[in-house]
Amino acid sequence: MHPANASPDPVSDYIQSDWLALFDSASPAARIAIRDVVLAHKAEMSDAFYARMLSDAEAHPFLTHDEVNSRLRHSMQRWLETLFSCETHEQFGSAMAMQRHVGEVHARIDLPVNLVARGARLLKGEIARRLPGSGLDRNALVEAVLYVDNLIDLAFEVMSSAYVASHERAARIDEAYRVFSYGQNMPLERERQRASLLDWENRFLQAMVTARSGDELPPIHGSTFGLWLQHKAVAVFEGSAELPAIRNAMDTVDHTLLPLCGQQIDNGDRAEARRLVKEIQHQLAQLKFLIGALFERFVDLESGKDALTQLLNRRFLPAILTRETELARNQGKGFALLLVDVDHFKRINDDYGHEAGDRVLQQMAGLLLNSVRSGDFVFRYGGEEFLVLLVEVDRQHALRVAEKIRGRIEQELFLLPEGRSLRVTGSIGIAMHDGHPDYQRLVNRADEALYRAKNEGRNRCVADPD
Amino acid sequence: MHPANASPDPVSDYIQSDWLALFDSASPAARIAIRDVVLAHKAEMSDAFYARMLSDAEAHPFLTHDEVNSRLRHSMQRWLETLFSCETHEQFGSAMAMQRHVGEVHARIDLPVNLVARGARLLKGEIARRLPGSGLDRNALVEAVLYVDNLIDLAFEVMSSAYVASHERAARIDEAYRVFSYGQNMPLERERQRASLLDWENRFLQAMVTARSGDELPPIHGSTFGLWLQHKAVAVFEGSAELPAIRNAMDTVDHTLLPLCGQQIDNGDRAEARRLVKEIQHQLAQLKFLIGALFERFVDLESGKDALTQLLNRRFLPAILTRETELARNQGKGFALLLVDVDHFKRINDDYGHEAGDRVLQQMAGLLLNSVRSGDFVFRYGGEEFLVLLVEVDRQHALRVAEKIRGRIEQELFLLPEGRSLRVTGSIGIAMHDGHPDYQRLVNRADEALYRAKNEGRNRCVADPD
Repeated sequence: MHPANASPDPVSDYIQSDWLALFDSASPAARIAIRDVVLAHKAEMSDAFYARMLSDAEAHPFLTHDEVNSRLRHSMQRWLETLFSCETHEQFGSAMAMQRHVGEVHARIDLPVNLVARGARLLKGEIARRLPGSGLDRNALVEAVLYVDNLIDLAFEVMSSAYVASHERAARIDEAYRVFSYGQNMPLERERQRASLLDWENRFLQAMVTARSGDELPPIHGSTFGLWLQHKAVAVFEGSAELPAIRNAMDTVDHTLLPLCGQQIDNGDRAEARRLVKEIQHQLAQLKFLIGALFERFVDLESGKDALTQLLNRRFLPAILTRETELARNQGKGFALLLVDVDHFKRINDDYGHEAGDRVLQQMAGLLLNSVRSGDFVFRYGGEEFLVLLVEVDRQHALRVAEKIRGRIEQELFLLPEGRSLRVTGSIGIAMHDGHPDYQRLVNRADEALYRAKNEGRNRCVADPD
Repeated sequence: MHPANASPDPVSDYIQSDWLALFDSASPAARIAIRDVVLAHKAEMSDAFYARMLSDAEAHPFLTHDEVNSRLRHSMQRWLETLFSCETHEQFGSAMAMQRHVGEVHARIDLPVNLVARGARLLKGEIARRLPGSGLDRNALVEAVLYVDNLIDLAFEVMSSAYVASHERAARIDEAYRVFSYGQNMPLERERQRASLLDWENRFLQAMVTARSGDELPPIHGSTFGLWLQHKAVAVFEGSAELPAIRNAMDTVDHTLLPLCGQQIDNGDRAEARRLVKEIQHQLAQLKFLIGALFERFVDLESGKDALTQLLNRRFLPAILTRETELARNQGKGFALLLVDVDHFKRINDDYGHEAGDRVLQQMAGLLLNSVRSGDFVFRYGGEEFLVLLVEVDRQHALRVAEKIRGRIEQELFLLPEGRSLRVTGSIGIAMHDGHPDYQRLVNRADEALYRAKNEGRNRCVADPD
């Protein structure tokens, strides 16, 4: 998965040979006929391409920049010319290098790959519809349409492969930046932004006292706080529920309340001005509350560890299963999933309270960690469910570890608040990686095994047959 | 860039209408002819598809699993049938939902998108080559080939769009896991793994003393250390120079030295056994050194901050420029880049030593941070180069900030070790974001402006004309 692991350019290997096969499959007459159609109509085709793209709401923002617009028409014509005039390996090689570059630029400007695919489809039609006039016979005509199709597909494959690689790299950097940002000193940042808000409030109040008719009041969007929120907080808190509420409050201040304040300055209506100041202070109080909540909730949400048990958060499960599936494929060594569930957990919560339940889960986490090697992985999987990934084990070994865990749970005295204690049992579903590349299937098999362990009376290990 | 920002499914909007246009463009006779060709030959086509895929070294690992193999042939036939039998919106809608699912599975099993594209090209040829026998006239035949081509392209667009989205999500989770992993307690981990190595050494020595002929000596790959390295360290240290060297030493121990030790146990040659033990201890010493270096170098490498100045590391520049370019596009507010370079920095290093140079850079970092707002970004860009990104500014504002910075540098007394001090000047190149979607162009423009500032005599600000 990681770029450092990927081969430098998996595409070029076969693209060259596929192109050769394609080149040989078409008669020279057909290739010349196609090239002539392309050269004769490249300007119209390029215009049709951009007309379509500009009519697309999604593509529009990428294409309206003056320079983009003036350069692209020309580029598109050269692109057609280059692609359809290739006669040698060397020419084709440099045409493909061009596609790679285009894919990288698309990734950099975040132009979705499907838009480009749509444009490619359009071009195929533009060319194909002009071919029947070329005098090719029936079979040659089919080959010619297919030739155009496949050639554009080859170019698009190189382009999209470069796009996917660059796009992944960009997503990784962005994610690293996001994680880095919230690794920064958050309590300090929170205090700093509270102070920024106070600072804006002071500036606003001062302006209300000293402003004259026609003066503009300072918008909160342009304040230190506003800029921080827009340009830094968004990277960290993206997707959080507080963010839209914060934006809402800021919009209310800037677009509704401040203009009204401005009117009161003009009118000199002090009672109404007082009411508006109160209203703005109410919005500010809300903002402060929301920012507190944002920082708070966030610490739980984004940590890689489960807050209660300090085990791995299940959100990392896909990353780790992908890596282990790949390792197993390359090394031929299997791994096992154990889904461990605390029996009758609901009763513990009901009879002893939630704090007791939490204690059981914490002690269970320690028990599991102490039962596996440091190369293994232990996740909090759900409420009272844990997932253990045993690396480089065979079925027998996995069953032995599962049985050891089951026995230890049975033996363990779980300590509850106020000096009380409790015994519990656990059910375990086991599934061995069987070479199937889709890890979701493995998780489902462990889940089914756990279900059977529950059904067959709990406090037992059941392995998925494989 | 972040998934939370993307619309849920940008593809389906236009796919439906493109399909309708395609559907209407082909005569019912042509559609029926195509469908009949597909239905009559779907088994052969499916076989040809898998024969080609299995001959591909890259695709092979994904397809050799028994279940994949037996199910896929059937799935491919159903896929062809479904796609080419669509007569209504509803049928087409559910065919497209199927493509989306396929794209998600491909992302999960990490099947590269270009392999699928290659298979799609093959299928197009398989169908097209059978069409001339269908009795369609010349023009209808061209339309039919194009119809097949476009229909498969539409399916592939939905598939690859789902693939790109899932793949990005997976890359983000993987990156978050990686960053999380190195956010864990690294000094503790280093000590733990040193202890694991010692532990293995003890077990090995004990085995050498007590083993009898035919006993197996414990391989280091299977030790706690070995499993940690393979399954956990790799996520964190991927791409580091030490990792291959560590693997090398482990391979030498397991594949060369341990088997020789085994022979000496059989032979009872104690002098040779002593030599081998020494040799293994030499490899272990190397391993300990490499692990120390790995943990050490890594802290510098992976931190988001520049170690010397504590400014943002330039590796985050693409992420932040992408975000700011997008913000500018959506809000219509520009941003500016300032490239700040310390004049004659080489002389400082030459005349006062490297420590003095480092102090100047640190103090410069503080000066820059104090000259901008908390929503702005300051990067260490290169040796003595800094990059400042000013958010939501116009040209005039950016020029003012640049001139303020230049003046402050000129005024500042830079403190060197041993109570010495120094005055320096700085040159600044300024470029305004002008709406162009490719941020690399903006960086280049700032670079050119800085070059001119240097050329025109240093200690000055030059803005790129725009």
